[in-house]
Amino acid sequence: MQSSPKILSSRYAGDYQMRRPGNTGSFPPNTARPAVAADPSELALIEAIRQRAATGKARGPLRLGIGDDCAILRPRASDEIVITTDLSLELVHFRRDWHPAEAVGHRCLARGLSDLAAMGARPMAAFLSLAIPPELTRKKRGTPTSARSWMDRFLDGFFRLAESFDVPLAGGDLAQSPRVTGSLSLVTADILLLGSVPRGRALLRSTARPGDILYVTGSLGGSAAELLALERSPQRYCNSLPTQPHPHLYPQPRLATGIKLRADGLATAAIDISDGLSTDLAHLCEASALTAEIDAHSIPIHVMAVLAEKAALTPSALTLALHGGEDYELLFTAAPATRMPPKIGGVPLHPIGRMLPRRAGRPILTLRSGSHRKPLDPGGWQHFRPR
Amino acid sequence: MQSSPKILSSRYAGDYQMRRPGNTGSFPPNTARPAVAADPSELALIEAIRQRAATGKARGPLRLGIGDDCAILRPRASDEIVITTDLSLELVHFRRDWHPAEAVGHRCLARGLSDLAAMGARPMAAFLSLAIPPELTRKKRGTPTSARSWMDRFLDGFFRLAESFDVPLAGGDLAQSPRVTGSLSLVTADILLLGSVPRGRALLRSTARPGDILYVTGSLGGSAAELLALERSPQRYCNSLPTQPHPHLYPQPRLATGIKLRADGLATAAIDISDGLSTDLAHLCEASALTAEIDAHSIPIHVMAVLAEKAALTPSALTLALHGGEDYELLFTAAPATRMPPKIGGVPLHPIGRMLPRRAGRPILTLRSGSHRKPLDPGGWQHFRPR
Repeated sequence: MQSSPKILSSRYAGDYQMRRPGNTGSFPPNTARPAVAADPSELALIEAIRQRAATGKARGPLRLGIGDDCAILRPRASDEIVITTDLSLELVHFRRDWHPAEAVGHRCLARGLSDLAAMGARPMAAFLSLAIPPELTRKKRGTPTSARSWMDRFLDGFFRLAESFDVPLAGGDLAQSPRVTGSLSLVTADILLLGSVPRGRALLRSTARPGDILYVTGSLGGSAAELLALERSPQRYCNSLPTQPHPHLYPQPRLATGIKLRADGLATAAIDISDGLSTDLAHLCEASALTAEIDAHSIPIHVMAVLAEKAALTPSALTLALHGGEDYELLFTAAPATRMPPKIGGVPLHPIGRMLPRRAGRPILTLRSGSHRKPLDPGGWQHFRPR
Repeated sequence: MQSSPKILSSRYAGDYQMRRPGNTGSFPPNTARPAVAADPSELALIEAIRQRAATGKARGPLRLGIGDDCAILRPRASDEIVITTDLSLELVHFRRDWHPAEAVGHRCLARGLSDLAAMGARPMAAFLSLAIPPELTRKKRGTPTSARSWMDRFLDGFFRLAESFDVPLAGGDLAQSPRVTGSLSLVTADILLLGSVPRGRALLRSTARPGDILYVTGSLGGSAAELLALERSPQRYCNSLPTQPHPHLYPQPRLATGIKLRADGLATAAIDISDGLSTDLAHLCEASALTAEIDAHSIPIHVMAVLAEKAALTPSALTLALHGGEDYELLFTAAPATRMPPKIGGVPLHPIGRMLPRRAGRPILTLRSGSHRKPLDPGGWQHFRPR
């Protein structure tokens, strides 16, 4: 039943336990193999995680990271903590043949950071639970020894983003994905993020007021457009990483914007756009017991969505902007009297509509185009399905 | 790419997002199905989770649970928080044909609670990320409508334990396990627990001192013994749940004991026994830069381990107690002058050995039997492999 490498586990202790090789596909694990025979590449992975988790600047509120039964965080007495978790499942949230490993690691962390941004929170620590096929910890045969395994590259993407926001990795769990004869062994990652906000000051979904102006950061539809392009020619995309914007592969969580909106009292409510503007706006309306009207001509559309329309990958760039999802921009409300800066930290803020009271016969969401108004279906994303 | 049920997600918002049916086994998801066609049993599951998460007594430090981008916790200013995560993977940590669904839910939470117990922490909130095959959310055909789905039963076990320790479920994530033709779709659960301890008072692994007495709570080897029995006749075990002790299926995390040891200053260091006495003691020694000697005749052996030896399921009950793992008892050290009560909260405390300085030629672990001493291999668990 026990599946951690006994001799080896003392090297990394408690939280980061790699299940020993031979344990997959049978339960109880195959105990015929000696406990010391753990795959050297797994050991290297564990060491890599521990070492990289320990690097970086001062760890602030993190008192104890990887290495005991729990990590310990000491928030400031004036703060409360916010917590979010997000699963990243292979074949559900990413495909290994489309998404570079670095992008999978980046996106895994970005999803959680974006949730913190929506609360106006400052990141404190991340925890990463990983179930991985053992072959992904090995370097590819026939490649130079300098080649990095899939997991090395996943961690490259993860830690590059973590370091850019100074988020320490404080713990997690590690296991081999079960392998059953004839079945695929898949990657599962679960990211947990803890952040801090001054007590009672977190930005919520439920506190928008009638008459508030609706804003969105950055631009929308880029992630869906890049996904459309990625589906057509994944190899080209995988090879063009450093030189282009990648709203799908490398979304940028709006942490600085969220913190500023909260700290300066600019926003009355906020949510991040993970499921698409229409869906997340419906969440905001529902939580605040309001409705919303947005102006089609005010919605900032990502240039890649415009290009996707021109390339006939989608009938309409607006559709991608409305329903595309995974843009990880912030959608927030502000009182009409609030003087909103045009940008925060270089990220533009666009007014796109306003919040209205609920009224009989009024749809949750209304899309205005000139003088024409029509109900907006928050389930609209299926219309732009990649073909 | 988006996989949450758009219309439906507003019912549970942010954290608990069920991926819509039709999204599994293809990426991007099969968007041909209308967004409103989510499986009613999935909706029922989400509602069940939300409702059950909201029940129970006052939620203490939990300010905001399921329903926004993040949950919010407000720890006391005098406390720090401890965090642990644990994966539970089908075919690695449990088998659906051996473990009743209730036990899988119980064990998932118990693993995390036991980590809190080892720190002397008080539970604050749990987060549960689940990837599940969609058929597990449905009731079995041909059974009465009162029959519960696998997931219902998983949650029964989870919440029964959560409620017994007054731990609110504050969030998580929910997804369908990917299904690929010809492949199994498996259950993955990741449990996250947050607890609180007064600042600087958490029990650690690294603070044992030479000369300290080693103690263990309860008795050992029961979990491994039950697993041996379970392997032989899973059906008999599945049908005998309520009437017997089940150290493997329903381990009891030692939270009250851990809190008392910490609050009364009784322990100098602690760890929970998840990987087996020998392995976890090696962790403790390594973290404290010490060695340990334990007395074979002092180790409290679970009656089920003794029965397993008599039934020839194992050559030795002691082997199960030393190396079996998953007993989720506490292993802790105390100064020799400390007057240790024989029990805390009904759980017996047994002295089993002592901590010694590191010395050239001295093994990390020594097992004493009368006047005979021999090195103890912390990888010993493979010797009792179920046959």
